Amino acid sequence: MTHAETLSAAGLSAAEITGGTLAVRSPIDGAVVAHVHETNPADMPAIIAKSQAAFRAWRTVPAPRRGELIRLLGEELRAAKAELGALVTLEAGKITSEGLGEVQEMIDICDFAVGLSRQIYGLTIASERPSHRMMETWHPMGPCGVISAFNFPVAVWSWNAALALVCGDPVIWKPSEKTPLTAIASMKIMERALARFGDAPEGLVQLVIGGPAIGEALVNSKDVPIISATGSTRMGGIVGPKVAARWGRPILELGGNNAMIVAPSADLDMAVRAIVFSAVGTAGQRCTSLRRLIAHNSIKDDLVAKLAKAYASLPIGDPRKAGTLIGPLVDSASRDRMLAQIAKARAEGGRVHGGEAVEAVAGGAYVSPALVEMPAQTDTVREETFAPILYVLGYETLDEAIALQNDVPQGLSSCIFTLNMREAETFLSAAGSDCGIANVNIGPSGAEIGGAFGGEKETGGGRESGSDAWKGYMRRQTNTINYGATLPLAQGVKFDF
Amino acid sequence: MTHAETLSAAGLSAAEITGGTLAVRSPIDGAVVAHVHETNPADMPAIIAKSQAAFRAWRTVPAPRRGELIRLLGEELRAAKAELGALVTLEAGKITSEGLGEVQEMIDICDFAVGLSRQIYGLTIASERPSHRMMETWHPMGPCGVISAFNFPVAVWSWNAALALVCGDPVIWKPSEKTPLTAIASMKIMERALARFGDAPEGLVQLVIGGPAIGEALVNSKDVPIISATGSTRMGGIVGPKVAARWGRPILELGGNNAMIVAPSADLDMAVRAIVFSAVGTAGQRCTSLRRLIAHNSIKDDLVAKLAKAYASLPIGDPRKAGTLIGPLVDSASRDRMLAQIAKARAEGGRVHGGEAVEAVAGGAYVSPALVEMPAQTDTVREETFAPILYVLGYETLDEAIALQNDVPQGLSSCIFTLNMREAETFLSAAGSDCGIANVNIGPSGAEIGGAFGGEKETGGGRESGSDAWKGYMRRQTNTINYGATLPLAQGVKFDF
Amino acid sequence: MTHAETLSAAGLSAAEITGGTLAVRSPIDGAVVAHVHETNPADMPAIIAKSQAAFRAWRTVPAPRRGELIRLLGEELRAAKAELGALVTLEAGKITSEGLGEVQEMIDICDFAVGLSRQIYGLTIASERPSHRMMETWHPMGPCGVISAFNFPVAVWSWNAALALVCGDPVIWKPSEKTPLTAIASMKIMERALARFGDAPEGLVQLVIGGPAIGEALVNSKDVPIISATGSTRMGGIVGPKVAARWGRPILELGGNNAMIVAPSADLDMAVRAIVFSAVGTAGQRCTSLRRLIAHNSIKDDLVAKLAKAYASLPIGDPRKAGTLIGPLVDSASRDRMLAQIAKARAEGGRVHGGEAVEAVAGGAYVSPALVEMPAQTDTVREETFAPILYVLGYETLDEAIALQNDVPQGLSSCIFTLNMREAETFLSAAGSDCGIANVNIGPSGAEIGGAFGGEKETGGGRESGSDAWKGYMRRQTNTINYGATLPLAQGVKFDF
Amino acid sequence: MTHAETLSAAGLSAAEITGGTLAVRSPIDGAVVAHVHETNPADMPAIIAKSQAAFRAWRTVPAPRRGELIRLLGEELRAAKAELGALVTLEAGKITSEGLGEVQEMIDICDFAVGLSRQIYGLTIASERPSHRMMETWHPMGPCGVISAFNFPVAVWSWNAALALVCGDPVIWKPSEKTPLTAIASMKIMERALARFGDAPEGLVQLVIGGPAIGEALVNSKDVPIISATGSTRMGGIVGPKVAARWGRPILELGGNNAMIVAPSADLDMAVRAIVFSAVGTAGQRCTSLRRLIAHNSIKDDLVAKLAKAYASLPIGDPRKAGTLIGPLVDSASRDRMLAQIAKARAEGGRVHGGEAVEAVAGGAYVSPALVEMPAQTDTVREETFAPILYVLGYETLDEAIALQNDVPQGLSSCIFTLNMREAETFLSAAGSDCGIANVNIGPSGAEIGGAFGGEKETGGGRESGSDAWKGYMRRQTNTINYGATLPLAQGVKFDF
Repeated sequence: MTHAETLSAAGLSAAEITGGTLAVRSPIDGAVVAHVHETNPADMPAIIAKSQAAFRAWRTVPAPRRGELIRLLGEELRAAKAELGALVTLEAGKITSEGLGEVQEMIDICDFAVGLSRQIYGLTIASERPSHRMMETWHPMGPCGVISAFNFPVAVWSWNAALALVCGDPVIWKPSEKTPLTAIASMKIMERALARFGDAPEGLVQLVIGGPAIGEALVNSKDVPIISATGSTRMGGIVGPKVAARWGRPILELGGNNAMIVAPSADLDMAVRAIVFSAVGTAGQRCTSLRRLIAHNSIKDDLVAKLAKAYASLPIGDPRKAGTLIGPLVDSASRDRMLAQIAKARAEGGRVHGGEAVEAVAGGAYVSPALVEMPAQTDTVREETFAPILYVLGYETLDEAIALQNDVPQGLSSCIFTLNMREAETFLSAAGSDCGIANVNIGPSGAEIGGAFGGEKETGGGRESGSDAWKGYMRRQTNTINYGATLPLAQGVKFDF
Repeated sequence: MTHAETLSAAGLSAAEITGGTLAVRSPIDGAVVAHVHETNPADMPAIIAKSQAAFRAWRTVPAPRRGELIRLLGEELRAAKAELGALVTLEAGKITSEGLGEVQEMIDICDFAVGLSRQIYGLTIASERPSHRMMETWHPMGPCGVISAFNFPVAVWSWNAALALVCGDPVIWKPSEKTPLTAIASMKIMERALARFGDAPEGLVQLVIGGPAIGEALVNSKDVPIISATGSTRMGGIVGPKVAARWGRPILELGGNNAMIVAPSADLDMAVRAIVFSAVGTAGQRCTSLRRLIAHNSIKDDLVAKLAKAYASLPIGDPRKAGTLIGPLVDSASRDRMLAQIAKARAEGGRVHGGEAVEAVAGGAYVSPALVEMPAQTDTVREETFAPILYVLGYETLDEAIALQNDVPQGLSSCIFTLNMREAETFLSAAGSDCGIANVNIGPSGAEIGGAFGGEKETGGGRESGSDAWKGYMRRQTNTINYGATLPLAQGVKFDF
Repeated sequence: MTHAETLSAAGLSAAEITGGTLAVRSPIDGAVVAHVHETNPADMPAIIAKSQAAFRAWRTVPAPRRGELIRLLGEELRAAKAELGALVTLEAGKITSEGLGEVQEMIDICDFAVGLSRQIYGLTIASERPSHRMMETWHPMGPCGVISAFNFPVAVWSWNAALALVCGDPVIWKPSEKTPLTAIASMKIMERALARFGDAPEGLVQLVIGGPAIGEALVNSKDVPIISATGSTRMGGIVGPKVAARWGRPILELGGNNAMIVAPSADLDMAVRAIVFSAVGTAGQRCTSLRRLIAHNSIKDDLVAKLAKAYASLPIGDPRKAGTLIGPLVDSASRDRMLAQIAKARAEGGRVHGGEAVEAVAGGAYVSPALVEMPAQTDTVREETFAPILYVLGYETLDEAIALQNDVPQGLSSCIFTLNMREAETFLSAAGSDCGIANVNIGPSGAEIGGAFGGEKETGGGRESGSDAWKGYMRRQTNTINYGATLPLAQGVKFDF
Repeated sequence: MTHAETLSAAGLSAAEITGGTLAVRSPIDGAVVAHVHETNPADMPAIIAKSQAAFRAWRTVPAPRRGELIRLLGEELRAAKAELGALVTLEAGKITSEGLGEVQEMIDICDFAVGLSRQIYGLTIASERPSHRMMETWHPMGPCGVISAFNFPVAVWSWNAALALVCGDPVIWKPSEKTPLTAIASMKIMERALARFGDAPEGLVQLVIGGPAIGEALVNSKDVPIISATGSTRMGGIVGPKVAARWGRPILELGGNNAMIVAPSADLDMAVRAIVFSAVGTAGQRCTSLRRLIAHNSIKDDLVAKLAKAYASLPIGDPRKAGTLIGPLVDSASRDRMLAQIAKARAEGGRVHGGEAVEAVAGGAYVSPALVEMPAQTDTVREETFAPILYVLGYETLDEAIALQNDVPQGLSSCIFTLNMREAETFLSAAGSDCGIANVNIGPSGAEIGGAFGGEKETGGGRESGSDAWKGYMRRQTNTINYGATLPLAQGVKFDF
């Protein structure tokens, strides 16, 4: 398929992809595939006002009815899965299976949110006073700004949108400037769902396209109480305090520097498979990509040898091609950063396998994935580089391995490969991994939507997706109702006049 | 009892109350009752390091065992209730019943936290992959800095400390500079519990006394991941973004501007009792004090007349005296602010009843509570003044009343008095009160510890006390465990090499 | 549409509806519309064994994958809604809107169960021992026998099947002998879902048709751990102890004798609408039908007059016809029982309005609904009659009204109409209604699937549908995992040798 | 201490222990230590009526206030721990540490229930209809009859009583005829708590002493909605259906036939310690005692040798003596049954180590614990014998071991010793142990009170103690509240007249 055919199959019209000021390039070959219209920053107040108006209507629509919108969205996504997946491949450079997997994640969260729409459970609580009833209810919060990154150009939006909409919150989406096309295509799918739904308020889901001025309008507006921002720690470190300063609620999903501990008892073949997928999948551009390998000294050399061999066998190239496992980096700047980091690591004593630019498709930024054996956990290792670099460290005791795992500023995902239950449990205990995600015998990436997704420290502390992450999109209210004819005070206080 | 006797009965030694740089005055008569030693800001790094060391030990102590410490604290508080309550009266100026009520609140949260210590429930979650298990566990987070205000000089600390300690987090407490004595006395009670407990790590609970430099050391330290701050919106507006900027977690309980709607069907006698208690109790210095009365036009005049009569009958004076219902403001600056606000309200058209300085006890800042009938919700009304001023507004429709209730920057507590279930339910619905607390037929203050306490907007969004507020003191971890011999990927992604 | 056309549209083949031993009549006109094949009781052991085999496979299928089957079932039900609804009308005599509503309920529970399939939340629990982890998980239980009644011929099965299948339990369905056709049609819809699903184990969902011998085979089999039986208290009183005696788990939804209290402040127009729908809807043959009206003496006569007038206006007749609100009773025996009960009530002093046989469609058992003003709550009133009889009682105080409401052997559903919040809350309090369902300002019938459905006393105590009713389909397991190298005992017990 | 001194120290008066018709023997030496007064069966209706009257008052006492009673009970139990523990030793024959551990369990459940008293969480639930609110509340149920067994003469009562009382249910306790003295002593402790509490209704907690006629009065009374019965499967098999037949709710904790699987990777020293404690502790008379050892063939002989050696070293004798680890069986009938079972096992091919009568203290039924290597899992092995017999079986594959574990009629407790995480997880999975309790690397006995306690199959299905076992003591009510002015029907049903 040509790029144009892919765009057309995904429902993008000529008017949508031409005449705009934002040039969109495909990482596959660096070709400009569209010029998209940007939102005028001056329009942001009206957009936010429309969202507020939609909120006032949407918050009183019964949640199961709101869920029906998401059910329809799920149906439309199922119908458009192949085309949207292909567009993800075109615009983000993911291999086909991963592009489809991303759409599947959208579908999964819709299913989850539909069920949630008949729950949104608060609590009834025993009151200490006679003829009093206590309860805690969860109410819609207001417009939710979603700032998403290029590497999950549509799934992250859907995680937020499915929950926010079921929770009664309108959505304003600012996608990465690198991936507006998948956003436009997703909005069209959403619009089909809205049309079938029938009576949703205008402005319930809006898309804004553009640069920092657009994002800042969301971040600084008191009328957008929730800002869910996914991206770099640098970005989040600016957004978080700004949102806090105007009494908003940030939901931050920022950088990870995810490690795997491989213990002596590990199933090494399984570990190799998990390492390769999580370190080089999406060309190392997942927030949960494996970036550090902490291997027991007794098996480290064997493991590196196996990995080096596996790495050498991985097909690099056009992500649309069957068989390709490593597609392009998002752009050449990304490739340059990768090569620079590798150079720094080498200067710090790192022994590098792979990690070179590859001429796969003209115009694309292709690289071979890097394995870098490090003498210690240096500052370079402590930094997140959004590319397929895997640093390898050795360890002697589990305590040492856990300390290495935790000794980075990020806290997203982590894992251990071991068949020893004492090691596995210790890793998951209060004295184990300090990350928001900690797995056993699976890699750090590829979370299911049923669990809460996010992490601690510089990862930002936000949670999205499953469990009770939905509470992040609502306000909690504690109610006490006195249905008696007297007025007893709590804590036995007396105040009679 | 003399002041000295009260101090002595509460266990304060001469060494503790003399020779220090911080002069402590009793609001009762303005007398300096102690000179307390302040923490040297230069010692803060060592104090925080000690807390971190305590954390590493405490986090692996089983939670039910941690609960035992809090059970012992509850026992010690029960034993010291009268003396600590009297000290609260001395140092914060509360009437006797309220001083005791505050200690009872400490006792209640201990009972709650002991039960919690055998729960700290996470979830097991269905995994989409065969031979996989998912769960979500809650782990201790690290040292918790507690910054508390003068008006609840001990209860707020206990809310935080009981939960934090059960959750595995050490506590560093910075009380208001106005109330270090109750803090010292509470620490001595805590130390008795620690001594009976036996093997808690050193530095598990620490007290730091002093001004902004002390607070900032906590707020800015990466090693104090949780900052629970109670006080003014101004303070919280500084603390929140600072904590966010260094990736900490703020729990903010800031200002309220709490309203009551009185509907035509309300039980007026009950309403009057509730209004008087919640507007003038603690001399209007509760964060949940009633500050705005939104009365239906049909009953407003009658209600104001009843209130004016009740207000005129309230005994003002020495809070230690039986019968006194209104004690002093915390200091003369507070009284001056009150009088200035009343003057502003009068200039905006307010009709003022009461609201004058009263000579009750020499040296104390006593006032008569003010009822201020306002022509509209002006900026003065929208501001929180920490004193017994109650602004009265009229309304015609419930929608109008709710709009008035919500049209302030704060979002802590609110209530409606009505016997009409449609009105009551509407007030509690998604389109009703926007506060964290919304009550029916009880005033805005006097929350039970079983519910989550806190509010939205400029109140800061934090939650303390009951429900799942404990999650604010822990980190959440999502775990997936693969116990099979294959490695299926989520979302059906394929990655075979 | 002719009966034959309705059967054909619902996908029933000639082979399925002819040649069998079980004659099926339509309540509409008493016509025999099919002769259905019955299950041979001798085949039951093999059927149960097949279910057990399916269980061993299905229990290890990941729950979200099991949910996918239910999602497909929901899709198929949506596609077949009109036809299955029409068949419900044909076989159970419901009016068109109710027939469709019943299918909608099936669809709703599917949506709910799909969401549940990614939850099935157990707990992680704080352990009192170091290096120990506790959790509680929910596991599939085994085959679930579903015994359903004629009046909800398909929805009750779907409530059970959707939950049971997501929970990992195969289903064996024994529908009422009066409604095998809707069961067969539902199974065909299920089979379409199974076919799309692909790899479900054979025998996962089975249908058995026939009389008591079939039911007893399920009730008495140790290999069917769960028996969910909906129907009469008489039936449940036999099933419950039998299942208990062989260590199975009964889920019983039996008779109701549902009341409405109408207070002086009630919105009478709304009450009249609610009463009429809940008393005469489905011709009074819902388990939640309103059977008793407890009206305040001050408004009772007015209310009865309004009801009598409304009753007189209700179109009785062919349920397929637009406009019809009261269709036929299920058969003439049912009509005879109704008339006999009315005669008894009259003999006890009842003043009867309506309650007569009506010649609407030849061959059908049509009646006009009865309002019966009773001097007291007699034994006749205490009995459930499955027909549109509404007994009317007066009351003076709310306590008296609640006592009347509770003074029947059944405990399913109840409600109050009042605008007074004190009355509403009292009715819902621990001292209020003793039923499993208690509503305010809506009738006793028409539950949403999000709540748990069922009741106390002779209603049997079972719960189906929403909330955590799913736990009834699973076994709970408490796990303690010791990952340390020592063996501390709980409760501090010492046992050293 | 003499027996008389122990009785006196536990607060039993001469009037309480003399002159009655029920002779109480100490298992220590078979001496009759008291003649206790039995409840006259003719008094049971009045006792139950008193409980019902107490219920009507207690159910409206706020739950946190009810919790205060249990907090006081916990305090009194702490004060009386040594004396009550000694009485447990005297009357049930437990060694001192176990007697104290049993009282500690009472204390623990009190702490848990106090916390629960401010929770008793129901749910608020999203409604599908506008201006509707849904919630689910839990209400007190009514009197709870507690039938307890000799082997946990006081803890089982406290588990039930602490929860039932906090949940608003009065308690009527029928202890084992073998252990009325500990029951009387516990009631006196309870009465001290009641006296301090102040205003509990009369008859809130009652004790009835006697034989089957007393138990049957409880089991058959409609006014005792909950029967919690702990004891033999034979007893439960009678009680369960009877309670079901009169629409009551049974909570059954019956027999166990608990197994441990010891895998090749197990820490054998730890396993030996766990086996010895759980097989011979309480002389094998716990419901969770280890009765079956399923050891991998590769380590079985080694394990048996180690156990035989350990068994030979265990001090058997007077349970009051420091150092004693095996006290007496409850009576000689019990010893005779043990010896008979061993003989049967030998006849089936069992190789027996130990298992002989021992002359330790004259008059007591002392035995040496038995290890019985069996060629297969025979019917004798499938039976629960309440004595220290441990059957040993070998296995080759984990599937085989799990099948052996599950192939008994009981389903209480189970465990695996392994360091292999795949084995551990498989054992805990849906395809693993079918018991209510499944542990890893700890024995089957000694549960913490934080988890739900109970089991499946002939164990009876009941749950007590932690998690949400409290729901078994309450009735659930689903509420829908319409606060709008229209009456929409669920599932979109239309019914306009």
